[in-house]
Amino acid sequence: MTESCPYPLEPDTAQRLAEIFRALADPTRLRLIAEMMHHGRATVHQLASAVGVSVSAVSHQLRTLRQLRLVRAQRMGRHVWYSLDDDHVAALYCMGLDHVLHG
Amino acid sequence: MTESCPYPLEPDTAQRLAEIFRALADPTRLRLIAEMMHHGRATVHQLASAVGVSVSAVSHQLRTLRQLRLVRAQRMGRHVWYSLDDDHVAALYCMGLDHVLHG
Repeated sequence: MTESCPYPLEPDTAQRLAEIFRALADPTRLRLIAEMMHHGRATVHQLASAVGVSVSAVSHQLRTLRQLRLVRAQRMGRHVWYSLDDDHVAALYCMGLDHVLHG
Repeated sequence: MTESCPYPLEPDTAQRLAEIFRALADPTRLRLIAEMMHHGRATVHQLASAVGVSVSAVSHQLRTLRQLRLVRAQRMGRHVWYSLDDDHVAALYCMGLDHVLHG
């Protein structure tokens, strides 16, 4: 873990890291992440229906998550599928949840 | 990981989880966490000097982190020592940093 955790934390790295956590600091975005994690991938309509918000609200939140490389999109035929971008995202989500529930 | 990652994510749990990530979504708080992780523990004066902000600003940020059980305080003689509350905090920090640097 030390290797992936350099010290000191440079101010510009701190800024970029804060942005990642800011993207996760929203209940709706967290619920979208929970859906993608559970189902592996989902369309924007599936996500809107699961989380109970509008398709345009989901699209907006997915854009934020994609810009920070937390979510990726893949077009297959007529559908665009959204999934978590890498294992870090699922791990951050689960570890945070573990802290909330049992920490 | 599945065990610590229940599905679905209930709205009130999503709210509490968002609060944790919001506490981490601040460059100064992240730099304080980096100091406590690296040194194991630190006084408010050591933190203020390392991060380059006032003692009262550090105290304010530490209060936020303590309220969410991300940081704990221990009085020993004339000093109060601050350290990360549990392994989740270090893991969240390192995993987020890994995503930023190599994700």
